[in-house]
Amino acid sequence: MRVSKSFIPTLRDDPAGAEAVSHRLMLRAGLIRQLAAGIYSMLPLGYRVLRKVEAIVREEMEAIGAQEFLLPALHPAELWKESGRWDSIGGEMFRLRDRKDTEMCLGMTHEEVFTAIARDEIRSYKQLPQTWYQIQTKFRDEARPKSGVLRSRQFTMKDSYSFDVDAAGLDKSFDAHAEAYKRIFSRCGIASVPVEASSGAMGGSESVEFMAVSDAGEDWIVQCDGCGYAANLEKAQSAAAVVEDQGDTAALEKFPTPGVRTIEDLVSFDGGATAERQIKTLVYVVDDEPVLLLLRGDDELNEVKAMDALGMQALRPAHPGEIRKLLGADPGSLGAVGVTNAKIYADAMLRGCNGMTTGANENDFHLRHVDVERDIAKIQWVDLRSTREGEACVACGKPLRVCKSIEVGHIFKLGLRYSEALGAKIQGADGKEVPLVMGSYGIGIERIMAAAIEAHHDENGIIWPQSIAPYKVVVAAVKMKDAKQAEAVEKIYQDCIDAGFDVMMDERDERPGVKFKDADLIGIPFRIVVGARALEKGNVEFFVRATGEASEIPLDQVISELKKRMI
Amino acid sequence: MRVSKSFIPTLRDDPAGAEAVSHRLMLRAGLIRQLAAGIYSMLPLGYRVLRKVEAIVREEMEAIGAQEFLLPALHPAELWKESGRWDSIGGEMFRLRDRKDTEMCLGMTHEEVFTAIARDEIRSYKQLPQTWYQIQTKFRDEARPKSGVLRSRQFTMKDSYSFDVDAAGLDKSFDAHAEAYKRIFSRCGIASVPVEASSGAMGGSESVEFMAVSDAGEDWIVQCDGCGYAANLEKAQSAAAVVEDQGDTAALEKFPTPGVRTIEDLVSFDGGATAERQIKTLVYVVDDEPVLLLLRGDDELNEVKAMDALGMQALRPAHPGEIRKLLGADPGSLGAVGVTNAKIYADAMLRGCNGMTTGANENDFHLRHVDVERDIAKIQWVDLRSTREGEACVACGKPLRVCKSIEVGHIFKLGLRYSEALGAKIQGADGKEVPLVMGSYGIGIERIMAAAIEAHHDENGIIWPQSIAPYKVVVAAVKMKDAKQAEAVEKIYQDCIDAGFDVMMDERDERPGVKFKDADLIGIPFRIVVGARALEKGNVEFFVRATGEASEIPLDQVISELKKRMI
Repeated sequence: MRVSKSFIPTLRDDPAGAEAVSHRLMLRAGLIRQLAAGIYSMLPLGYRVLRKVEAIVREEMEAIGAQEFLLPALHPAELWKESGRWDSIGGEMFRLRDRKDTEMCLGMTHEEVFTAIARDEIRSYKQLPQTWYQIQTKFRDEARPKSGVLRSRQFTMKDSYSFDVDAAGLDKSFDAHAEAYKRIFSRCGIASVPVEASSGAMGGSESVEFMAVSDAGEDWIVQCDGCGYAANLEKAQSAAAVVEDQGDTAALEKFPTPGVRTIEDLVSFDGGATAERQIKTLVYVVDDEPVLLLLRGDDELNEVKAMDALGMQALRPAHPGEIRKLLGADPGSLGAVGVTNAKIYADAMLRGCNGMTTGANENDFHLRHVDVERDIAKIQWVDLRSTREGEACVACGKPLRVCKSIEVGHIFKLGLRYSEALGAKIQGADGKEVPLVMGSYGIGIERIMAAAIEAHHDENGIIWPQSIAPYKVVVAAVKMKDAKQAEAVEKIYQDCIDAGFDVMMDERDERPGVKFKDADLIGIPFRIVVGARALEKGNVEFFVRATGEASEIPLDQVISELKKRMI
Repeated sequence: MRVSKSFIPTLRDDPAGAEAVSHRLMLRAGLIRQLAAGIYSMLPLGYRVLRKVEAIVREEMEAIGAQEFLLPALHPAELWKESGRWDSIGGEMFRLRDRKDTEMCLGMTHEEVFTAIARDEIRSYKQLPQTWYQIQTKFRDEARPKSGVLRSRQFTMKDSYSFDVDAAGLDKSFDAHAEAYKRIFSRCGIASVPVEASSGAMGGSESVEFMAVSDAGEDWIVQCDGCGYAANLEKAQSAAAVVEDQGDTAALEKFPTPGVRTIEDLVSFDGGATAERQIKTLVYVVDDEPVLLLLRGDDELNEVKAMDALGMQALRPAHPGEIRKLLGADPGSLGAVGVTNAKIYADAMLRGCNGMTTGANENDFHLRHVDVERDIAKIQWVDLRSTREGEACVACGKPLRVCKSIEVGHIFKLGLRYSEALGAKIQGADGKEVPLVMGSYGIGIERIMAAAIEAHHDENGIIWPQSIAPYKVVVAAVKMKDAKQAEAVEKIYQDCIDAGFDVMMDERDERPGVKFKDADLIGIPFRIVVGARALEKGNVEFFVRATGEASEIPLDQVISELKKRMI
């Protein structure tokens, strides 16, 4: 490829509003441009990377026997109503009506469509197992699109679906995917960490996320260096220190707490309580019903844990008016003692606690000597709290680490979730009808690109892993108008093409500094520079982007040197 | 690929409701399944063909220097408002609102988005020419989806866009595309005919469609065997026989025509007129305004010609109530004489005609001795009529042929249509700002698949051209349980893989007839069959799908024979 004829709109300066490194560099290197909030155009250089990632994904999927489909993005609402997700999924789904006023949506995932095909076409266990995949465009109307292609509203996904006759078959399909995913990320230059995860809107019994540790990520993961335990914060548990039994059997006592509005206020209030001895009372609305969520004062609610615990896919904090109507007081003085008009869910850390303090449901009053199980009616015990850095691992007791990461893949044991809802049954070996046992598996293609950049860059730009670099080699002359240099550049360029390397030739009439800056910014692994002085000795400069290593080598050894270094 | 592990749901019988051969065979051979009206899932075998077509398209686009992008399917309405097409395009555009209630649409084509990128990123004539393309999913809410993937609501399109500094540059880009298109169709086994076409909703000065002659097509094209003239019926002209000047200067005369409702009624009415001497008066509504369209009684209106003539992208026949309100009479007695409350467009064939008969705008009455130019006010002369089989070619006078065809490609000289609307300007060589001169070029990928099937099939199924066959070779044993046969089949299969052939092995425990029928149906070019008798002599059967040629050849010559025959 000749740079002078190509469209690579690099930017000298950081674009406004792009915080994540990968977002900034993808814009600056001319890989992407934004069309609308969370919607990006892939420019030629970006699309080359995307296709290289796709090719790796495709190879690894074929290696586990998966067959490639291409399903529509436009889905009839009907199918999603059959699965129940038309109602359970909220604003994330793009919905529309066609010219005949038929309800449709844009596919955010394809469990429904693939299950419907299996339902119509698979009759017998003899046709199993089957693994079907596609690399296709997904649409999700994210509330807060962010960080370029990391959280966007339209993106490319490899999604696959396994169909087995029983749970043992599913386990095999699931494990095969886990192994394929590890190979894919590793081949793309990403160190991935598989973690236990919430299955969320997908349903099913078990799921594993593949995480690339990075400050640009929006997920928090919990890891134990001792035993290797790893989980998304939305799922992670710890052996958190339990506050000892206070042996407080005193009767409830209401006391005035003028001006106290927060946990911290009550800590510093004369006659108040430490955070660990307070009950935090949160009011949420689930399915139009208010619920109370109780945590120890020093713990934070994890909303995904709450959704999983309640078996819901959406909940929201109650509005002030709703709270006042329910409990007769404002936040700051709320409590669950004596409450009978709402369901009460309490975090397991509160179990057996006495000598606690909580709001009295009367502004500026609290209750002390609360014994949780004695004084609060009909508690349902659940896991609501976020695990914290340094807490002990449940398995081995070592301190846990919490860090940010990018979710690059997610695999689910769906079980019968969709086959039962859609009636996808087959004849088992014993002649009886059984529902298909399913798994689903997703990888975000653009996220892999961004995660690779997050992991491989420096102050000058991207440092592509060879496997997914848009081009592997760039050839340039210090002075293109020098006929000898131009000739050498053309020769090296042609030799690279003949050797089958992805090569670009920067034959622009620009200062060398501009060309080198661009090459560094777009992250081409190897740069060959032809300059007058070295050329007189029959040499050229050989520069390795990843290491910064620069050496002079004979012109006629360029190809062999490249071959040696290509992975 | 092993057939026993693959998902190829062939159907023994013709599916109901599929008329076009390609539609029937794509369903029967397990290439596609319908998800909703005009929306199809590509199954593994179908997707392989699609990817092979894509690869050919990609090669030919790269060969003319085009650079590959991938643009979003979700577009902000704003951009389409800038070009004016938000309003001018009707129900064909899928529209939706996102969670913030922002108006969006699904891209039916990408002139707007590509022009916006060029506007933001191209500054100077020095960066030109540029040709940008993508292979991407398009959405069009067709009023009448039909014939499987031939007229669907979601499909894959290669669309490209050229940006030049002047008209001469556009001509070069346009011609390069025309040549690339011819190579693409020819490589895919399609005999394509380039024809003059209407530019319709795309705008611009000139366009050429690439047509594959086929009864499954929905377009009619007009061809001259004499001089090679070829045009879509929507655009075609002919030297149609003009009815001689009658020299009728008599005054208008109203006469009763009880019961006459049609052109034919008046032909057979005593004292009526031949069709050529009648004026056909049609009432249409354009932009909420009624217009009269006049044709000679024996001519048919071509609605696309009417739209082009009126510069509109939509029109509809008036409702009976609208007609009565406008003209005071019902269809059958309508005419333009004396009409001043609607614009009147007349087909050029009526020019200079006298001695004509037309409706009197009074039920059961007509007017005779009509002199079109004397008696009808403010006529605008346009081309409205459909050319008919056998009419003389304008260029050479030879009789024209009219036949059905499938539009597989369409290329447009857009000129300044979008660059002016969106303000995409660059600095020209003289330092002055000039708008970009654009072309746009489209190929329907699934249509190529269907057109290839329409051109290559027999009563047993598809006969794929080698270039786009899902697999080139199928290997099968007459009796898979015979260890010797199984071993030979495995060996040939492995040898084919080693030789780099796309090969499938049908190792199912099925009767040979079932396997051969499937292989014929899905159209694999070469079939190798291992049977007991031939195998004893060290031979296998070599069958060529396209010719039906079957021969016995030595097992160890299979690979060399295949190599000889591979294109």
